[in-house]
Amino acid sequence: MSYVYCNVDKLRAFCEKIFIRYGFSAQEAKDIVDVLITADLFGIESHGVQRMVRYADALNNGFIDPKASVCTVFETPCSAVWDATKTMGQIISISAMKFAIQKAREYGFGIVTVKNSNHFGIAGYYTLMAAEEDMLGICMTNTEAIAIPTNGKKAMLGTSPIAVCMPADPIPFWYDAATTVVTRGKLEVYQKAEKPLPSGWAADENGISCTEAKQIIRNICDKKGGGIFPLGGEHEISGSHKGYGLGIIVELFTSIFSGGTTSPHVQNNGNADTSFCFMAMDYGMFGNKCEIKNRVSALLQELRESPHAEGCERVFTHGEKEWLSKTQVEKNGIPVQEKTVYELQQIAQELGVVIKEDPFGLKDLS
Amino acid sequence: MSYVYCNVDKLRAFCEKIFIRYGFSAQEAKDIVDVLITADLFGIESHGVQRMVRYADALNNGFIDPKASVCTVFETPCSAVWDATKTMGQIISISAMKFAIQKAREYGFGIVTVKNSNHFGIAGYYTLMAAEEDMLGICMTNTEAIAIPTNGKKAMLGTSPIAVCMPADPIPFWYDAATTVVTRGKLEVYQKAEKPLPSGWAADENGISCTEAKQIIRNICDKKGGGIFPLGGEHEISGSHKGYGLGIIVELFTSIFSGGTTSPHVQNNGNADTSFCFMAMDYGMFGNKCEIKNRVSALLQELRESPHAEGCERVFTHGEKEWLSKTQVEKNGIPVQEKTVYELQQIAQELGVVIKEDPFGLKDLS
Repeated sequence: MSYVYCNVDKLRAFCEKIFIRYGFSAQEAKDIVDVLITADLFGIESHGVQRMVRYADALNNGFIDPKASVCTVFETPCSAVWDATKTMGQIISISAMKFAIQKAREYGFGIVTVKNSNHFGIAGYYTLMAAEEDMLGICMTNTEAIAIPTNGKKAMLGTSPIAVCMPADPIPFWYDAATTVVTRGKLEVYQKAEKPLPSGWAADENGISCTEAKQIIRNICDKKGGGIFPLGGEHEISGSHKGYGLGIIVELFTSIFSGGTTSPHVQNNGNADTSFCFMAMDYGMFGNKCEIKNRVSALLQELRESPHAEGCERVFTHGEKEWLSKTQVEKNGIPVQEKTVYELQQIAQELGVVIKEDPFGLKDLS
Repeated sequence: MSYVYCNVDKLRAFCEKIFIRYGFSAQEAKDIVDVLITADLFGIESHGVQRMVRYADALNNGFIDPKASVCTVFETPCSAVWDATKTMGQIISISAMKFAIQKAREYGFGIVTVKNSNHFGIAGYYTLMAAEEDMLGICMTNTEAIAIPTNGKKAMLGTSPIAVCMPADPIPFWYDAATTVVTRGKLEVYQKAEKPLPSGWAADENGISCTEAKQIIRNICDKKGGGIFPLGGEHEISGSHKGYGLGIIVELFTSIFSGGTTSPHVQNNGNADTSFCFMAMDYGMFGNKCEIKNRVSALLQELRESPHAEGCERVFTHGEKEWLSKTQVEKNGIPVQEKTVYELQQIAQELGVVIKEDPFGLKDLS
């Protein structure tokens, strides 16, 4: 895979033009692209602009409707349930977290669940919105079933990430992780590299650990059985039931509490049937915010300074690697695969977006 | 290890007498013992009456004060922070969850954090209290540092369990699990059996996976380094950083949000320095409760009915094994080690509690 380095602002502007051409307002386009570019800045390529091609497909197929409007299903002072009715995942998610923050400002706590939506990018983006308002943010999403339950052999749950962000100095605690050992993207990387999977990542159609990435992915696509193991691996002895239970908890807060489609019934065709949950908690509900922030900053610092294991560089806290990546990428540009650059140009051409010379401010760092 | 089977009511009455003699009211004694007996009914021996000897020690040493009263540190409509001031863990925890439930009844959501407390038994007991009021319950506790962070070699976090209970038919979803691969109790079982630990459970003083239970436990006691791995095991490749992050999240909700002692500084001498968090959520804040309960019941049923992996009996949902155990134990009696029976009699004798003939209604099922 060959990478080129794109100027952040130019790439941003290029992608925004595409979404505007699809019928989104300038502000909406800015919001959608900010979620994607943030993933790229954090080094999470799988959720960055390389996903534009999938969003374009969903827009072309009518699975995402740029003119759709959100419908409130239920509301209480601390909570709301929304039906996304095919709006773009990123747009409804930004609105939902803003609404949760507004509720938290009044009551200390706000929670908004959303059904019938599309992929929303990195869950951690929305928790960061809460942290920027000096609140604790929590976000979850269910996904197409790709994970097997402990003792099972049929994919019943999603990779179902949980994201939590808590303000701290010098950087927040920023946690964003699937409740499975790995995500599907990791399997695809091993398949491309023709490398055997580590044992304990995924199961074959009989529910037994299997290291053949190609076989696992084909089985998942064809719904022939097998899938990724829950966090904790194959058996209870390594804690498999713990990750499996966390997957059910995500399902509760997303599809069950929004009335959406549960993971075993989510389609994989871009259809609007995933569910989200956004929570904001004003941690001032526990006392002086300055003192609380100092306490968490001290704990994280203690962890980073704690002695490292033999053969390891040092102990990290969650978000540190992403903030380091951001500094690096802002300096060098966003690494984008040549294939992705080609896809972006194709999408733009099909929409009749005028492409200027060197639209991405490409740099060759090799 | 030799077990005898105790009549549930007789064992309950015997233990209550002990706590009354220590100065607790009849109701308080009933509450404390109910937490312990519930663990035994659920088959969680480590947190059942076998722990009486540790509570007796803490009471004798003045670490628990039966006459202490709770002090409110901070309060908002949805939240409260309490200082336990050496009250018995089970008593303050029952009060705290009741208070969270009361707040949730009014606002949909209630959260109470507690500092300076003692061990409170099984976290899942308190989430069940919320479920019995037809609410979602969440409970967490920090503990003495016994888990090493990913890449680390010094124990910095507790086994830090997360418990979640959601009403469902025929039985609730009842999740109660450490954020580490295993708990200390499991290491002790392997040590007693002189069996090597499974690889990926715990690290030696250099932070490297080690199968010597004796060495690990001695290192933990002497604070020589090493400890249990986070859920996900030794390395990032198997998801170690995910369990590590969950441990930090528990620390946020317990010590950080209560102003209590963080896990790296919790003592292991029975001193009152652990922190808890109790949350209740009236899931009616998301719509019709009957419909929501039906949806979650259907999901759990689908999971239980999903095809099992080769060599496995079937797929379970969380709480099922505990409810099965309860039915069994209520019929056959509580299995208690002879050593525990002896310890209970010793405690009673030292306190001058009159022991009647066959105080435990012993049955020999062998």
